[in-house]
Order: sequence, then C-alpha cells, then structure tokens
Amino acid sequence: MFKLDSRLQQDTFDMGRFSLCRLLLLNDSRYTWFVLVPEREDITEIHQLSAAERALFWDESHRLSVWMTTAFAFDKLNLAALGNVVSQLHLHHVGRRVGDPAWPGPVWGHSPAVSYAEAVVNDIRQLVQRDLLAAP
Amino acid sequence: MFKLDSRLQQDTFDMGRFSLCRLLLLNDSRYTWFVLVPEREDITEIHQLSAAERALFWDESHRLSVWMTTAFAFDKLNLAALGNVVSQLHLHHVGRRVGDPAWPGPVWGHSPAVSYAEAVVNDIRQLVQRDLLAAP
Repeated sequence: MFKLDSRLQQDTFDMGRFSLCRLLLLNDSRYTWFVLVPEREDITEIHQLSAAERALFWDESHRLSVWMTTAFAFDKLNLAALGNVVSQLHLHHVGRRVGDPAWPGPVWGHSPAVSYAEAVVNDIRQLVQRDLLAAP
Repeated sequence: MFKLDSRLQQDTFDMGRFSLCRLLLLNDSRYTWFVLVPEREDITEIHQLSAAERALFWDESHRLSVWMTTAFAFDKLNLAALGNVVSQLHLHHVGRRVGDPAWPGPVWGHSPAVSYAEAVVNDIRQLVQRDLLAAP
C-alpha cells in the first residue's frame, strides 16, 4: 500500500494523479516547482521500477515538462531525482529563471521557501486539472 | 555537427559512447560521477529530444545506473539534468555516500573537485568498456 512520505506531504500541495505518479506542487512560490512521485511502495531509485513503469514515468515527466514550458515563464528546466533526505522516489521539475534566488546554483537546501497564497495554489490546480491531467 | 561543450570537455574524461550518448566521467574522485550527453546539436532540454531519442536516452541512463550500483559502492544515486551553467543537455549520475563532502546536500557548486590519478581513470575506463559499453 503506497503512502506518501510525510515530509513530501508537508512541503507540497496535491495537484492530482497521472497513471503512475502523484503530481505535487512544492510550496515555494519563488520557483515553478512540481514533483512526480510514482505510487509504488518501497521504491527509492528509478532503476527499481519495471520497464513498463519506467516508460510511464518518463512519459508523465515529458508531459509535465512540455506543459510547464507553455503554462509558465522560465528560462531553464531542472530535472532531478536526488533522495538524499527523503528516500521515497520523487522527481523534481523546477522551472528556473535567470536571477532567481538560487541561480545558477541548485535550489535544494539554498534558502527557506516562500509559501504560496491559497488562491494561487487553487488557480494552478485548476490549470493542471484542465490542461495537463485531463488531456488525452 | 555535434560538439561537446568546452566546460564539459575540460571537467571530464571521455569513457566512450552508447548509441545516442557520449559517456563522461567527471574528474572528481570524491564521488562516483558519470555524465551522459546526447550527441545531438542545439539540445538544452530533455523534452526537445524526439520520442525515439528519449527512449534511447532513458535506456542508456538505466543501463548506466544499474551498472554503477554493481561496480561501485554508494548509498544513493542522484540523477539530474540542470544546465544552468552549461546549457548543452547533459544528465548527471552521481553515486552518493552517507558522509561524503556534500552529503546530504547537492554536489553542484559545493566545493572544489579532487582530481583522479591517471591510473584510476584508466582502470574505470577498462571496466566501462568491458562491462557496460560492450554489453549486448
């Protein structure tokens, strides 16, 4: 039985589900930062997924990446599966802007997050549901 | 005509080629750190690759990841495509050990690299050629 890691739950908003992954928005309004988490138990590395699951995983990452570049304005997409702190497999998709607080360094561990206003999260969730998760 | 970015060339050793990617060893002996670079011109984001190229890209990343976990001792694999400094698409595969210099933070920008001895690079290249790139 899959259970989302408590730290991920605390730091993110649930945006919905793809076939394999749960889609989360990280609660840091300084970046455009989504996280994919395969809803599978006891997986810490991408290569532990089956070939069929990996195909789904990268397809969902691709759809998210393409949609992010159309729906938000940023200069560079950072993709990363680190897991040094939270071992449950999760793949970061971070839209980076030249001159953002951590630019050009990595965002992880850089500085305290700046929370979203609730209305903005609801707007993003509506966009996600209409344009990304409901897409054929 | 593909040309490896000069910064990547300077910081790495050429280990050989998969079908799509050039395989590099980052010159920092404190980590087990390989980099895949698709030999395609003017690509900065994974989602700019074609569907067929992405399938190859993730297959080569999978083969590298599985092989790294058998050939080296580390606790966590970090996968990342950042590109904030070097825009040419490249995918980091970093074997992390609990207590390594940057642990549990990210390795990028943490501290100056510690170069390999030439003999060690040659040993790793032999392993790569025999067990990874020559595999069926």
